Amino acid sequence: MTQRFKITVEYDGGPFVGWQRQPNGPSVQQALEEAVTALSGEEPFVQGAGRTDSGVHALAQVAHFDLEKEIASDALQGALNHHLKAWPVSVVLVEAVSEEFHARFSATGRAYLYRILNRRAQPALDEGRVWWVPIKLDAERMQEAAQVLVGHHDFSSFRAAECQANSPVKTLDRLDVTRQGDEIAVIAEARSFLHHQVRNMVGSLKLVGQGRWSAARLKKALEARDRTAAGPTAPAEGLYLTRVTYD
Amino acid sequence: MTQRFKITVEYDGGPFVGWQRQPNGPSVQQALEEAVTALSGEEPFVQGAGRTDSGVHALAQVAHFDLEKEIASDALQGALNHHLKAWPVSVVLVEAVSEEFHARFSATGRAYLYRILNRRAQPALDEGRVWWVPIKLDAERMQEAAQVLVGHHDFSSFRAAECQANSPVKTLDRLDVTRQGDEIAVIAEARSFLHHQVRNMVGSLKLVGQGRWSAARLKKALEARDRTAAGPTAPAEGLYLTRVTYD
Repeated sequence: MTQRFKITVEYDGGPFVGWQRQPNGPSVQQALEEAVTALSGEEPFVQGAGRTDSGVHALAQVAHFDLEKEIASDALQGALNHHLKAWPVSVVLVEAVSEEFHARFSATGRAYLYRILNRRAQPALDEGRVWWVPIKLDAERMQEAAQVLVGHHDFSSFRAAECQANSPVKTLDRLDVTRQGDEIAVIAEARSFLHHQVRNMVGSLKLVGQGRWSAARLKKALEARDRTAAGPTAPAEGLYLTRVTYD
Repeated sequence: MTQRFKITVEYDGGPFVGWQRQPNGPSVQQALEEAVTALSGEEPFVQGAGRTDSGVHALAQVAHFDLEKEIASDALQGALNHHLKAWPVSVVLVEAVSEEFHARFSATGRAYLYRILNRRAQPALDEGRVWWVPIKLDAERMQEAAQVLVGHHDFSSFRAAECQANSPVKTLDRLDVTRQGDEIAVIAEARSFLHHQVRNMVGSLKLVGQGRWSAARLKKALEARDRTAAGPTAPAEGLYLTRVTYD
């Protein structure tokens, strides 16, 4: 009899090609699958809630897998973390769940944080953890314009060419921009996102922050339903998957 | 004619032997002095407000130096940061000051933050930036006991053997312990500190947090005026110099 486990995982995306296993480099999924195999001898598929891109971080990615080995959640967490020591990946929570739980399909919400370091001086402590933007950004202006994107829209203008979603129509529940000292935080919440959607929205909001775009221009970009109408993609290093919600 | 400059510096202490130049490895002071020389051809001594130990970080260390080269503060900041790119050191502010300003002797206060990650799972994103303590600590108990140390005391029990201060008597203005989620922050403020004082106080507070020591036991350690009566030294990687105050 197998037991399904739900795990909550923190990682530094820097050294990885992303969440998903790929032939061209180490992935978070592979690191986790190898840790599971090392402790159990089994080779389950570790299913993530979402595929973070290369360089994208997670405070609380969620995944699930099935084990035949009988093991308590606490012991499983300790063993996973022991076998993950070579990687900047840490399993912060392990829960035994019913086999109806699916990390991806049961998820009802996802939250991301995008961190911008907005000061003249480059980051010393947060190198690789923020997007460094040395030109002054107006966070209030960004916050006001961001509300244009909140709601039920066709987000084709903010969708990567490789996006595999069936539809470009999504409901964006929250897009908040706040400044604290030199740091600007963008918080995005939705049931699900298109590929690169958060980074593409942030790339356009940055144009608003530096005064090159108005909120009306951002609205026009959304309505164009054309990737070339919107701003560039913000770098991966500022993005964090912070929460996956289940009912 | 020379001009004195006050600089505010952020750094990751990880790759350094500490603030001060030493023959056994790279120091923050050396990185800064070499950057000054690269941009000016001059070889001034860069005087820091305090000497952080190997591995200790700074959000806002303060230093000063004199230059004969005529250069505006903004241009100096840009040039310093350009020449510091090889190091996790960033000059966040440059101010032209009178020659009466002295980074060390004019300072009237110093503030430190000590970060403890208190959860079972090792840090993934904050590796090298926090002290990971997997056993549960009671932050409220730590906060209560910490108040024993606040005030004017002989801190010999929390002083490193190599400390060069004239007197072990200091006034600790603030020692606050707070928990936010899995992280415990200890904030310490004083006019000045003894060598290792913050790390030694944190090492003892950790014993209080895990229930091994009472506040009374901590008071006894203070009153013993003997380093061996107090707890072990907390690791450098959790410590940040966060502020130096001038009148």
